[in-house]
Amino acid sequence: MEASLNSTTVRVRYAETDQMGVVYHANYFIWFEIGRTELLSAMGLPYDKLESEEGLNLPVAEANCRYRQSARYGDDVRIETRATVLRPSVIRFDYKAKRVSDDVLLAEAHTIHMVCNREMKRHPLPEKYLAALRSN
Amino acid sequence: MEASLNSTTVRVRYAETDQMGVVYHANYFIWFEIGRTELLSAMGLPYDKLESEEGLNLPVAEANCRYRQSARYGDDVRIETRATVLRPSVIRFDYKAKRVSDDVLLAEAHTIHMVCNREMKRHPLPEKYLAALRSN
Amino acid sequence: MEASLNSTTVRVRYAETDQMGVVYHANYFIWFEIGRTELLSAMGLPYDKLESEEGLNLPVAEANCRYRQSARYGDDVRIETRATVLRPSVIRFDYKAKRVSDDVLLAEAHTIHMVCNREMKRHPLPEKYLAALRSN
Amino acid sequence: MEASLNSTTVRVRYAETDQMGVVYHANYFIWFEIGRTELLSAMGLPYDKLESEEGLNLPVAEANCRYRQSARYGDDVRIETRATVLRPSVIRFDYKAKRVSDDVLLAEAHTIHMVCNREMKRHPLPEKYLAALRSN
Repeated sequence: MEASLNSTTVRVRYAETDQMGVVYHANYFIWFEIGRTELLSAMGLPYDKLESEEGLNLPVAEANCRYRQSARYGDDVRIETRATVLRPSVIRFDYKAKRVSDDVLLAEAHTIHMVCNREMKRHPLPEKYLAALRSN
Repeated sequence: MEASLNSTTVRVRYAETDQMGVVYHANYFIWFEIGRTELLSAMGLPYDKLESEEGLNLPVAEANCRYRQSARYGDDVRIETRATVLRPSVIRFDYKAKRVSDDVLLAEAHTIHMVCNREMKRHPLPEKYLAALRSN
Repeated sequence: MEASLNSTTVRVRYAETDQMGVVYHANYFIWFEIGRTELLSAMGLPYDKLESEEGLNLPVAEANCRYRQSARYGDDVRIETRATVLRPSVIRFDYKAKRVSDDVLLAEAHTIHMVCNREMKRHPLPEKYLAALRSN
Repeated sequence: MEASLNSTTVRVRYAETDQMGVVYHANYFIWFEIGRTELLSAMGLPYDKLESEEGLNLPVAEANCRYRQSARYGDDVRIETRATVLRPSVIRFDYKAKRVSDDVLLAEAHTIHMVCNREMKRHPLPEKYLAALRSN
């Protein structure tokens, strides 16, 4: 079960701040995507291969984030990501964003993804992906 | 009650697409922010005045979006926004994003905002704002 | 000659600001793209048709911007765009960004674009596009 | 002279691609900013300190990029950055973006920055910054 947790770190970019002096809320979803692609990649299932070799995409069906503390320019933020197979064509990822310097929780989130083929029709994830995700 | 619904239209920018050929999911939250600022502005309560004159911000505490259909480059998308005062220092906005050409629902969403002063402490919204939002 | 000048207006989004309290510099290039697509569209040559029907893209070969004054949240900014055919497969666009409220020049810019087919090889623009651009 | 060259690597994010299947051109300027802040940081002159302790900003006066090859999702891109003091209140940064896998040059760029105080007036960079930049 432990393997399901991928951890990757992003450094806050100036472009990600807004005039409130903190990271603009929508940018967390860009970080969470880095989290899930790094998780897939660490399992030997790189997302670009899923697109180019299997012809499959993972469009987002739902995105949810609760913001606890603000991230600021220059902060290093650890993105912890966990994957769950809800159905062979529906995957859920859960995320925590934590400030590296003091381990403070900045945000908790989840996204739900449909597995779709090039015609944007639902399509089960290949078995090797499902097996890897389930074994986590 | 009708006045609570603000409607504003955005045209999809090339920069907002990704290599899946559709609008990147995080960008909807940028559109929803346009929706809520246009709603406040239409009520005579421009958000920049809230920041500059009242010293108040509306940081996002929670953001949620369910994606129904993809928006594509060049689409005109109507953002319908409704505001609800949950508490004097907690405001909720609900959104629908619809493709203008055929009125198809693209996404439904809500965000919950804390009202905070310059020290990022909770602070009730000024009464004129509350009254305007409640009268909707 | 006058027709070559397309004018379109964008309202500064909160997401486009940074913690300096002004629009982040890279975002001007997103506005300039709106300028050139609106120019093409106004000439009856929508860019999405160029992609979908002609199989042609206009990747950016060079981008240059000189920033004069800062744009701020809530400003309306007028983007004035002019097109020049340098070669049948090389197009230049010149831009001015002006604050609508007082007509102050915020930025001057140009971009140079290659016309490329789906294999990303140089390819002349269809004659109807060239004629329209040259007649400006 | 060698120390002037800072090298930092970014991995292309899905959000940075567009429907042409390559990195959207404006995003390179975000990477170049990472390059210059990493250069300053490596010299012991972190940019956030410049803002918070010295009250100085480095707004961009000019930005220029020539694009050679496209960066794609998943690519690692090395940003090489060099700084030059043009005047005590005018700094120039030159950049090369190279694909890590094969060292191919993707883009060459430069930006010119004014040193400004909180009132956005020109102000010379503190001597310790100038000395460090000049000694490179």
